[in-house]
Amino acid sequence: MTNQRRLFLSVAVNSTGSAGRSFAWPGTDWGRFSDWEHYLRSARLAHEGVFDIVFVSDHPALQRDNTSRPLHSFDPTVLFAAIAAAVADIGFLLTASSTYNSPYNLARRLATLDHISGGRVIWNVVSSFNPDIAANFGSAPLPPRAERYRRADEFLEVVKRLWLSWDPPTGEPPAGPLWDDGTARPIDHRGEFFTVAGPLNVPIGPQGHPVISQAGASDAGVDLAAKHADIVYASLLHKQAAFDYKARLRERAVAHGRDPDEIRLMPGITAIVGATREEAYRKHEALHGHTGEDGLIADFLKRTALFDISAESIDPDRPLDPRLFSYTEDQRRPVGFVRSFAELAAAEPITPRQLVRRVEGGHRLAIGTPKEVADTILEWWSEGAVDGYNIHIPVLPDGIAEFNREVIPLLQDAGAFPRAYDGSTIRERLGLRDPRAAA
Amino acid sequence: MTNQRRLFLSVAVNSTGSAGRSFAWPGTDWGRFSDWEHYLRSARLAHEGVFDIVFVSDHPALQRDNTSRPLHSFDPTVLFAAIAAAVADIGFLLTASSTYNSPYNLARRLATLDHISGGRVIWNVVSSFNPDIAANFGSAPLPPRAERYRRADEFLEVVKRLWLSWDPPTGEPPAGPLWDDGTARPIDHRGEFFTVAGPLNVPIGPQGHPVISQAGASDAGVDLAAKHADIVYASLLHKQAAFDYKARLRERAVAHGRDPDEIRLMPGITAIVGATREEAYRKHEALHGHTGEDGLIADFLKRTALFDISAESIDPDRPLDPRLFSYTEDQRRPVGFVRSFAELAAAEPITPRQLVRRVEGGHRLAIGTPKEVADTILEWWSEGAVDGYNIHIPVLPDGIAEFNREVIPLLQDAGAFPRAYDGSTIRERLGLRDPRAAA
Repeated sequence: MTNQRRLFLSVAVNSTGSAGRSFAWPGTDWGRFSDWEHYLRSARLAHEGVFDIVFVSDHPALQRDNTSRPLHSFDPTVLFAAIAAAVADIGFLLTASSTYNSPYNLARRLATLDHISGGRVIWNVVSSFNPDIAANFGSAPLPPRAERYRRADEFLEVVKRLWLSWDPPTGEPPAGPLWDDGTARPIDHRGEFFTVAGPLNVPIGPQGHPVISQAGASDAGVDLAAKHADIVYASLLHKQAAFDYKARLRERAVAHGRDPDEIRLMPGITAIVGATREEAYRKHEALHGHTGEDGLIADFLKRTALFDISAESIDPDRPLDPRLFSYTEDQRRPVGFVRSFAELAAAEPITPRQLVRRVEGGHRLAIGTPKEVADTILEWWSEGAVDGYNIHIPVLPDGIAEFNREVIPLLQDAGAFPRAYDGSTIRERLGLRDPRAAA
Repeated sequence: MTNQRRLFLSVAVNSTGSAGRSFAWPGTDWGRFSDWEHYLRSARLAHEGVFDIVFVSDHPALQRDNTSRPLHSFDPTVLFAAIAAAVADIGFLLTASSTYNSPYNLARRLATLDHISGGRVIWNVVSSFNPDIAANFGSAPLPPRAERYRRADEFLEVVKRLWLSWDPPTGEPPAGPLWDDGTARPIDHRGEFFTVAGPLNVPIGPQGHPVISQAGASDAGVDLAAKHADIVYASLLHKQAAFDYKARLRERAVAHGRDPDEIRLMPGITAIVGATREEAYRKHEALHGHTGEDGLIADFLKRTALFDISAESIDPDRPLDPRLFSYTEDQRRPVGFVRSFAELAAAEPITPRQLVRRVEGGHRLAIGTPKEVADTILEWWSEGAVDGYNIHIPVLPDGIAEFNREVIPLLQDAGAFPRAYDGSTIRERLGLRDPRAAA
C-alpha cells in the first residue's frame, strides 16, 4: 500500500451532521452546531479512525432553509486553528471563497494555519454561487460564473506565489539584513482583478504551501480544478460518470502541463450503517423524520422542485427521464448536483423508489450492513474510478465513532486503508509533490 | 478591589519581543517569530502572571525595516484561536484593519473566536496607515485619514449589529422553524461604504459581543475611540498629557451619549527590570546592541529623522524644543507617537540623555529595580490618570517570566492587581456592560 495507491478518506464535520434533521436526533443537543467542542470531539473521533482529513464546507451567510440544521456557522480557519492545537496528524480541509476574500489576507490566514498545524491545511476553493452571500458583501449582485472562475484562477495564482515568497534562513540570525529581495521576493502582481505587491509576511510553511482542492463540475470548474487542484470533490452518482469525469479531468490537467497522477479524485458519499440492511433502511427513514420509504420518496419529489420538475408528474415506480434534470453552463445555481442526477438517470433506468436508496444529500449513498457499506466504498476505488471519498456522516459526532467501529476495520482488513498515520504533512500523506520543487 | 477600580494589565506578545534586536538576544532562537508555540509559551506565562490580556498589534505587509525583528507575521485571529484552545481565562486582544477587511467576514471570524474562547476577545480596530499595506490590496493608494475613519465608524456600526443579529433559542430545538426574522434579524445596512443584509450566521456569543479597543490620537481617532471603544491604547508619555487625554476622551464619550466610566485607558509601557538600576540600564543598552548610554542617544537621534529633525542640530544635554516634534492632523503617518513626544517636551525641560530613559519603542519606559518598575506603573494609575497598561516586554517569552517573578507580586502586595482570575468573560473582568442590555 503506497500513498500513490491507497484509499483516501476525509470526513465532513459540518454542523450537527449531514442529515437535515440531525439537529433533532434523539440524545443530541441541537445547540452543538455553535459549540466548538462538538467539532473538536468530531475531529478527535476522526483521528481515532485514522481519517486522512476533516472537511468543512462553507458559505458566509445564514442559510435560507430554516427547517434544517444550520449548515455553516463558525469561520473554518478560526475553528480549525483551535482544533489543530488539540488534534495531531489529521489534515484540515476548509472551504473559502475566492469571490469574497482578498488574496493577501486569505493567503496569510491559511499560511498561519499551515504553520500552526505543522503542514496539514487543504484549501477548498469555491467561487460562491448564492445571491444571499452577495447581499452580505455590497450592493453588487453575484458576478456571472465565467467572471467568478477567471477571478478564482487569478486568485489562486496570486495566493500560490505569495505562499512561496518569503524563505527566511534558519539557524543563527543573518549578520546583515534579516531579509532582502532574494529571500523575501515581491510578487508585483497586476492582473484583471488583483494588484498585489507582496511578499507575504508569513514564511514558507512546513509543506511548502497548503494543498488545493476544488469541486468544479461545470466546464469552467473542471478546467480550474485540472489547473490548480490536488484534490477534486465532484458530485458523482454513477461509476461510469466517475470514469468519464476522471478522464475529462486528466485530459485538462495534461493540457495545463500537469502530471494527472498528482490529482486525487474524492467525491462525497453518505454512509448509513445498520446491523442489517433493514435496520439501516429504517435509520435512513428516521433521519428524515419518517417511518417508511414513502416519506423518503415524498422528500425526493419535493426536492426535485429545485430542478423545475413538478412532483405531481412523477411516478415513484417508473424510471426517471434524465432530461428532467436539465442544466445550462451559465445557470446561477451550481451545476454539479443537477448534472450528477442527469448522469445517473441516463446511465441506467432508475425509479424514484430506487434512487432514494442510492443518493442522499446530493451524494452517493452507502447504506446497509458494515460489509455492504465497506463494499460500496471499495468498489469504485478498487476499479480505479476514484482515489477515495469524502464521507458524510448523518449525525455528528457519534456517527463517526460508529463508522470507526463498524466500517474502518473492514477497509483496513481489505488492505485499502492504513492502520496508523504516516508522513508528517498532509501533502506527504497524499503522496503529492512539494511545490518548492516546481517553483 | 472592584473591577471598576483596579489596575488592568495586558502584555504584548508581538514577534520576538518589543526590542528591535530581541531576535538576536543570547540564548534565543530568532526563528521563533514564526513558531506558534513561542506565542503559546508567551500566553501561558502571561496566564501564570494573571495578566488580563495578551495583545497583538498587526499590519498585513512584510515590514520595510529588515534590521529589526519582523513585527507582524501570523494572522492574529488564527493564532489566537489556537492559543485559546490551550490557555484558559486570559483575554485576547487582536488588531485588525477596518480598511482592508469586509465587515461580514471579520465579524464572523471574531464571533467564532469569541465562542471558542468563551467570551475572551477584544478587537483592536485600526484604520491602517502604511502605504505598503495598500500595495497588497489593489492599485488604489491608501485612502485619506478622514475617509478611513468614516469607514471605520461605519464598519464598527455594521459589525456590532451583526454580532447581535442571531439569538437562537437554547434547550430543546424549536418545533417550528429553527430561526425566523424575530430571532435572526437581517440588519439591511446601506451606508456610504457598506451594504450588508445580514443576519450573521454565528449566534450571539458568551459576552454578547467582543470588547472593542482603539488607539486613536488624532482628533478623528479620539472621537472614534470615544464613540466605540471600551479600551483605549493611546501613546502617552507624560502624566499631565494622560490627564488631558482622558478628559478629552471622556468629554467626547459624553457627547456620544456614553457613560465615560465605561472606558478603560491603558497606554503602552515598556518594562526593563534589573537587580539594581545600573543593571537595568546596562540591559537597556544591551537590548539596543550597545554598551553605553551614548549608543541609546545616537539611536534616538537617528530615529528623530522620522520627525524631520536633523540629528546634527541636537545637543544630547540640552532640553529639546517641543516644536521639533511637529505633526498635522492630515499627515500620512500616525499622529500618536509624534504628538506624545511633543507633549512630553512641552511639559518639562527634557534632554535627549534623559529622554532615552523615559521612552522606549515609542512608549513610556519603566526601568530599574522591580520596586522602581512597579512604582512607575502604579504612580499614574493610583492618581487616576490611567486605568492600566499594555506592558511591552523587550525579549519574549522569558521577559514575561521575569516580570511575573519580580514585578507582579509588588503590584499585588499594593492591592492594585488581583492574585487570581475572576469573571468568566473578559467583559466581566473589565467591569463592562453587556451590549445586549443597550441593544
